[in-house]
Amino acid sequence: MPFARIDLLTGTSAAFRQRVGQVVYEALLAVGVPENDRFQVIQEHDEDGLIFDPSYLGIERSAGFISIQITWNEGRTTDQKRSLFHAIADGLHTELGVRREDVFINLIEVKKENWSFGNGEAQYAT
Amino acid sequence: MPFARIDLLTGTSAAFRQRVGQVVYEALLAVGVPENDRFQVIQEHDEDGLIFDPSYLGIERSAGFISIQITWNEGRTTDQKRSLFHAIADGLHTELGVRREDVFINLIEVKKENWSFGNGEAQYAT
Amino acid sequence: MPFARIDLLTGTSAAFRQRVGQVVYEALLAVGVPENDRFQVIQEHDEDGLIFDPSYLGIERSAGFISIQITWNEGRTTDQKRSLFHAIADGLHTELGVRREDVFINLIEVKKENWSFGNGEAQYAT
Repeated sequence: MPFARIDLLTGTSAAFRQRVGQVVYEALLAVGVPENDRFQVIQEHDEDGLIFDPSYLGIERSAGFISIQITWNEGRTTDQKRSLFHAIADGLHTELGVRREDVFINLIEVKKENWSFGNGEAQYAT
Repeated sequence: MPFARIDLLTGTSAAFRQRVGQVVYEALLAVGVPENDRFQVIQEHDEDGLIFDPSYLGIERSAGFISIQITWNEGRTTDQKRSLFHAIADGLHTELGVRREDVFINLIEVKKENWSFGNGEAQYAT
Repeated sequence: MPFARIDLLTGTSAAFRQRVGQVVYEALLAVGVPENDRFQVIQEHDEDGLIFDPSYLGIERSAGFISIQITWNEGRTTDQKRSLFHAIADGLHTELGVRREDVFINLIEVKKENWSFGNGEAQYAT
């Protein structure tokens, strides 16, 4: 169910980008997302195509900036969202050397009947 | 009003992608979206850029995987969403030979005043 | 907090696209978004990849079509949304010569705790 759009600047390797996706997936698992529920689009952009303020809220961002927009089900608490943010930033830093300041995350929440995982069915609808 | 982002792997023809967009549009019509209300972004990705679990929920996905994320107005029932999912998967299968298992759909719902179709006006606001 | 995805056809200059982003940012400022809160993805597409109806709602659209999808916090009034739409269309027209008919805007609203601007924290959560 989580569907993540990950945007970053060109200049990383395919292996790096795969590991970014893996870290995001593992952070989602840690807050209760089902195993193997992994759907992600990862896109590189030229400097012209990915724009971020270098110091909004006093956080210094670099060319290593990564934007992660996750669509998932409503119902998570603020504490669960905090845990997710921490897990993603910590994982990217620890495993890939990404600066924590460079991790931008945005969550979009939807109803559980808003997903079809194949076969034209709404697998999460009750 | 529906705005669809369609993501798939490289290797299809432009004609195929156009027909994918057409099927999605026709499926939306069938659940009551106004005629000619068609706005879509269709993007190809290398294997590194479009990641999907090959068997989540027991559904076997192939390189023909297509992700369809539709932003539209809130207020549709679960049955209408089910109908949309079926129409998209059936249409892609029947018209283009896409495996039903490869059709991943996600709906984002917004308020009707959240759209401007041109001229800086909120055409759906009341 | 606003995160904008801007999609347009190939054929514009990088400078033009930067100014499109700037106009969107300034229009957001004008409706109360904090200064320097600017995060944007701007993407070019071939004709095959960006599909828009040429006359839906009687508005004539051209190859200068620009789609702007903005994710931001819930709580804005319809009047504020109207003001934003007007400011974006007027700004793009006045500063860049974009036809007002070509400006398509869609807003996605999220909760304030749905953002992390870096460091794995939810800076807007209370």
